[in-house]
Amino acid sequence: MTLLVGVVEGDPPSRDVLASRPDVRYVFIDPGSPPPAEAAAAEALLIWNVRSGYLRDHWRDFTRLRWVHAGTAGVERVLFPELATSDVVLTNSRYVFDEALAEYTIGLMLALTKDLQTTLRHQSEHRWVQRETETLSGKNVVMVGVGPIARRTAQIARALGMSVRGIGRTARRGDPDFGDIVAAGALRAAFVDADYVVMVLPSTPETAGLVDARAIAELRPTARLINVGRGSTLDQGALCAALRDGRLAGAALDVMTPEPLPADSPLWEVPNLIISPHMSGDHAGWQRDIAELFTRNLERFLQGEPLLNVVDKTLGYAPSEHV
Amino acid sequence: MTLLVGVVEGDPPSRDVLASRPDVRYVFIDPGSPPPAEAAAAEALLIWNVRSGYLRDHWRDFTRLRWVHAGTAGVERVLFPELATSDVVLTNSRYVFDEALAEYTIGLMLALTKDLQTTLRHQSEHRWVQRETETLSGKNVVMVGVGPIARRTAQIARALGMSVRGIGRTARRGDPDFGDIVAAGALRAAFVDADYVVMVLPSTPETAGLVDARAIAELRPTARLINVGRGSTLDQGALCAALRDGRLAGAALDVMTPEPLPADSPLWEVPNLIISPHMSGDHAGWQRDIAELFTRNLERFLQGEPLLNVVDKTLGYAPSEHV
Repeated sequence: MTLLVGVVEGDPPSRDVLASRPDVRYVFIDPGSPPPAEAAAAEALLIWNVRSGYLRDHWRDFTRLRWVHAGTAGVERVLFPELATSDVVLTNSRYVFDEALAEYTIGLMLALTKDLQTTLRHQSEHRWVQRETETLSGKNVVMVGVGPIARRTAQIARALGMSVRGIGRTARRGDPDFGDIVAAGALRAAFVDADYVVMVLPSTPETAGLVDARAIAELRPTARLINVGRGSTLDQGALCAALRDGRLAGAALDVMTPEPLPADSPLWEVPNLIISPHMSGDHAGWQRDIAELFTRNLERFLQGEPLLNVVDKTLGYAPSEHV
Repeated sequence: MTLLVGVVEGDPPSRDVLASRPDVRYVFIDPGSPPPAEAAAAEALLIWNVRSGYLRDHWRDFTRLRWVHAGTAGVERVLFPELATSDVVLTNSRYVFDEALAEYTIGLMLALTKDLQTTLRHQSEHRWVQRETETLSGKNVVMVGVGPIARRTAQIARALGMSVRGIGRTARRGDPDFGDIVAAGALRAAFVDADYVVMVLPSTPETAGLVDARAIAELRPTARLINVGRGSTLDQGALCAALRDGRLAGAALDVMTPEPLPADSPLWEVPNLIISPHMSGDHAGWQRDIAELFTRNLERFLQGEPLLNVVDKTLGYAPSEHV
């Protein structure tokens, strides 16, 4: 008995990272074309190119589908009502991006804190201008989102001598990495004395615009904000206004609205704002890491065991046991 | 009995950070002028502006001097033969800059690794160009120099999932932060499989040009080098040649030769090189931190107790108990 697995190709194509197995046959699917006839028989689907909306557009072709794996942590592009209400299990690539994303986030925090943008601009102008800068040590960071990426970031922040708080779906105390976690309703109160805010939220109806103009208004003018989760979770206009008015010291966005950011967007030129093209998780080797995770899940699927990283299709993400 | 303390002012002036004491009288000295008459009676001298060479130039004026404190970690500008062979005790500001310097160093490592220079250039050009980048996790770093700044950097590097080795004056095994420390003679061998080299050396006759063309030639083309110690310890020309030829992936220099770097130096334009104007230790509050250290030493001096951070005037730095 051979399992037929559809693979919606990404860019770059990634078929060489999937190990061939005698009990599995892969059907590779060009996201720009309708599914080949044999794809209708696929029981599992691995989606590299989550942006294509491929499954939503061709949902009725996949009549035998039982499992979909997304090659991302955030699944808002893969999830749609028909999938959500079906019996098809959705898994994501949670954990694959934690280390790279946490490093990238800490890198952005340090870049803002050490004013690296100005140093690089001075370098391009051949100017030697010494300045005093801040330290992360002794400062605090509010992690908005308490999933595994936020957790790894919190661990490194603690190693750097920062104090950490978390904002999650439900409040709890004494988490080893986040310390006290407060519920989203207490977000504005947590922002009042924040030195850094790091946003690592999935895109769900619940998180849309969670960090809004009123929350941003609570931040001190010395505070800095980093978003590496999803652009939809932040009122981007309110952030830019705060930066332009000097009500916020700095910000870095690896995610934003829209993506890719058009060349004529005013966002590129907002003062003290670093724009990074949604690349924080794209570490060299990510395709192999996802293929390895998929293969582990494939083994479980073939054995009839519970899959790893099952997305709660109502919540819109794979919940931690704690949250 | 009042102790007379000379204070060679820096830029910015820092007299307001020194607490007034009934048993101490401060005489503030403009580094551009000869010592005032009363300075001859100073038994202690606090030098903020170590670059001025003030004490060397006016050595014979300070007839009653017993103790000199340098407001820096590196003392090569303060140390000169007459001071070295005298009974005057020299102390430095070791430990004051550890945290800031370690953070800055990690920030430079992450900037190089995540290719932040290119991202910021793309931002200025309004271009959205996603790339894959490396992680620090799983990579190794060779710390050249094993003093407290290197130690703090090593601790953070370990928290980021890196493996760490050290190069010190004497070999030893099983250091909690550096792991195995090899002697400088084994430097080239240690460079062969280095992912990152971080140089945190003082400027002494022993360290001059320690990382030379032959050492740089041992590095892999994927390696990256950061110098936050002193420019004299690195063959800068060899580094630039390696970067220009693509024999090295990247480098960042916070210290170099000469400083300040003149506007017409070719160094500003070397590919994959970040030039930072010797500011890694200049955290907001450094003057207060040095004043606090000086005050603790002043207390000891008045009590006749051994001073903190005594520089070995033969070695040219304050040695750790381990090294």
